[in-house]
Amino acid sequence: MDYTYLLLLALVLLSTKVFGLATEHVHLPQVVGALLAGIIMGPSGFGVLQSTDFLVKTAEIGVIMLMFTAGIDTDMKELKETGVRASVIAVLGVFVPLFLCGWLYFVFFCGGEFTPYNLLRSAFMGSVFSATSVSITVETLNEMGKLKTRTGTTLLSAALIDDIIGIVVLSILSAFSSGESNPVSVLIHIVLFFAFVLVVGMVVRRIFTFVAEEHWHSRRVAVWALAFCLLMAYCAEAWFGVADITGAYFAGLILCNVTKARKFVAKKFTVASYMVFTPVFFAGVGMKTNLRDMNSNILVFALLLVLAAVLSKVIGCGLGGLACRMSRHQSLVVGIGMVARSEVALMVAQRGISAGMIDESILPAIVLAVIASALLTPVLLKLSISRGPELA
Amino acid sequence: MDYTYLLLLALVLLSTKVFGLATEHVHLPQVVGALLAGIIMGPSGFGVLQSTDFLVKTAEIGVIMLMFTAGIDTDMKELKETGVRASVIAVLGVFVPLFLCGWLYFVFFCGGEFTPYNLLRSAFMGSVFSATSVSITVETLNEMGKLKTRTGTTLLSAALIDDIIGIVVLSILSAFSSGESNPVSVLIHIVLFFAFVLVVGMVVRRIFTFVAEEHWHSRRVAVWALAFCLLMAYCAEAWFGVADITGAYFAGLILCNVTKARKFVAKKFTVASYMVFTPVFFAGVGMKTNLRDMNSNILVFALLLVLAAVLSKVIGCGLGGLACRMSRHQSLVVGIGMVARSEVALMVAQRGISAGMIDESILPAIVLAVIASALLTPVLLKLSISRGPELA
Repeated sequence: MDYTYLLLLALVLLSTKVFGLATEHVHLPQVVGALLAGIIMGPSGFGVLQSTDFLVKTAEIGVIMLMFTAGIDTDMKELKETGVRASVIAVLGVFVPLFLCGWLYFVFFCGGEFTPYNLLRSAFMGSVFSATSVSITVETLNEMGKLKTRTGTTLLSAALIDDIIGIVVLSILSAFSSGESNPVSVLIHIVLFFAFVLVVGMVVRRIFTFVAEEHWHSRRVAVWALAFCLLMAYCAEAWFGVADITGAYFAGLILCNVTKARKFVAKKFTVASYMVFTPVFFAGVGMKTNLRDMNSNILVFALLLVLAAVLSKVIGCGLGGLACRMSRHQSLVVGIGMVARSEVALMVAQRGISAGMIDESILPAIVLAVIASALLTPVLLKLSISRGPELA
Repeated sequence: MDYTYLLLLALVLLSTKVFGLATEHVHLPQVVGALLAGIIMGPSGFGVLQSTDFLVKTAEIGVIMLMFTAGIDTDMKELKETGVRASVIAVLGVFVPLFLCGWLYFVFFCGGEFTPYNLLRSAFMGSVFSATSVSITVETLNEMGKLKTRTGTTLLSAALIDDIIGIVVLSILSAFSSGESNPVSVLIHIVLFFAFVLVVGMVVRRIFTFVAEEHWHSRRVAVWALAFCLLMAYCAEAWFGVADITGAYFAGLILCNVTKARKFVAKKFTVASYMVFTPVFFAGVGMKTNLRDMNSNILVFALLLVLAAVLSKVIGCGLGGLACRMSRHQSLVVGIGMVARSEVALMVAQRGISAGMIDESILPAIVLAVIASALLTPVLLKLSISRGPELA
């Protein structure tokens, strides 16, 4: 038996932590460090880390666990309270980036030909930038004592709804890219998938509520939840041609109302994730980000993509805010607060690559845009809040 | 990409939990349930579960994490207090089973030929039954209120020392079975390995004590520890030809004195283990336990092995107790308390199989003996305690 997978896994954990601490030291998110670890220690750098089948599968489980956690962390009560306004912001915040970033890709890489394949690829690229990562904004608002303002809670809810819409868009795109050529049959698959989620959801939620009533703090509930999450990921992929991460996300969403077990389950998932799985995912994306393939065309695209990714969220969510009669200043803050992308964008990109819809040579541009959006958010947010009137 | 590994992992988690709950319901350890899940759902039963490269690697990481946890859970203070007496019991408790079970194997499968290969195989089989699993005894003693007696603490310490001796024996056997034919060179490898552990131990413990001083409750300490544990497992295997689980165990032992971080690290390892890795290991052993290959020869061997496994511990540890001037009743209780085998025995067996020293066709006999020893221990222990004078 070959034991190098132990060495590789150890090196992935070590390097993501070392780089993560380094980026944390200069006040950058640890995700950036983990990506850098993959880029610098991987094939485009020292070549110490190499992608293997085992690491790819481990990374995929990491993605699945992250999406499940995103689902189970959804606070339905708060969603309902700020529902309408947050939905308008989220919808505009998903579709403006989808169109703008997708259009940019279309202009650069599709030679102006409106074929279904080109449109699908452009839409995939656009959908990478439609999902907000709100954790950086939460941190910044919290630090400034503005998290509990009306603007703050609206922002949070919009980010949650944004996830759901983004996931639905991803499912549709995945189904269309799964090789099935008949659009009607694809649509049937999608409808069937959501019907499946609904039925399974009602049954499983009841089972969990029943089990969790007595044993909510027991290991078994967390293990059941993981098995359920993996099954949903598998079914989404194998039965409906929809992305596995979509299945995992809905598995989480189904369990987010099992109030007693919810926090316990999320905690156990988080521990297992950060101990092994998510570092492998982030390092894996970094390892795929081959800077040696960069050319001037991709570099120009990357810089414009940063601009498009940032502006599209500010414009989309800002317009949403204005439409809901928020002040211009509040709308700007909401727009900027939604700029940051992180793990979800990387997951969608990863998904696009394995579905053959995103070319690996463009990954450096995506990673750059994701990192830039995550870095700019706290800076812009602080500026916009401190330069305006007191935030309500 | 093929997504069946998600389905397989989900099925492993589900079935080990279902069978584990069933065995727990009839007051048997959950490990028995997990083994049964592998046997019944695996190739010798319904054939739903199948071993894959991904599952094998995941299981191996599970074993490594288990051994690390065993190492880090060692209470050095208590060891020193009950040191001499516990050591005598442990030494006899390791070597009597080693010789008796090894001899039984030699008689059955080696045709009386004293070749080095036959002796090595017999010793490997013997070493499977040299490691006690004390958790069942702890539970029983606790239930009867006898855990804090002098007999109870002696038993616990003996079980800890028993682990260390067992691991050293395993290292030596592994080194001899690693293909190197010159015994002097093998011995040099072993000596170098322990020198390596000593040097790395002094350096790494200092680093961890320094880091843990401030950040002992931080995720990073647990991730560092896992990376260290994997590295030690890799080095033990790849550099010294010693078993990977030996490396993992010593990694744990090195960190068991970093008092501040110890409990935190052990807890995070436990969560990651039970969520994903250890169920895969136990189910994997069950899946390898092919009952269809059973013949009358192996069946007779299995029954005698149960007897040898139980008696050898009672005799070995009992004699050790008598030698240390414990009363006959106390010695009997100590002997019976050490009978139970569990994960360590299965790990050594697994190791023997992958080193080509144990034939997979004998695994059913080993699994049967392990399960029987685990089942008999609480029954015999209760009998022996209640029939004798009050335990001191």
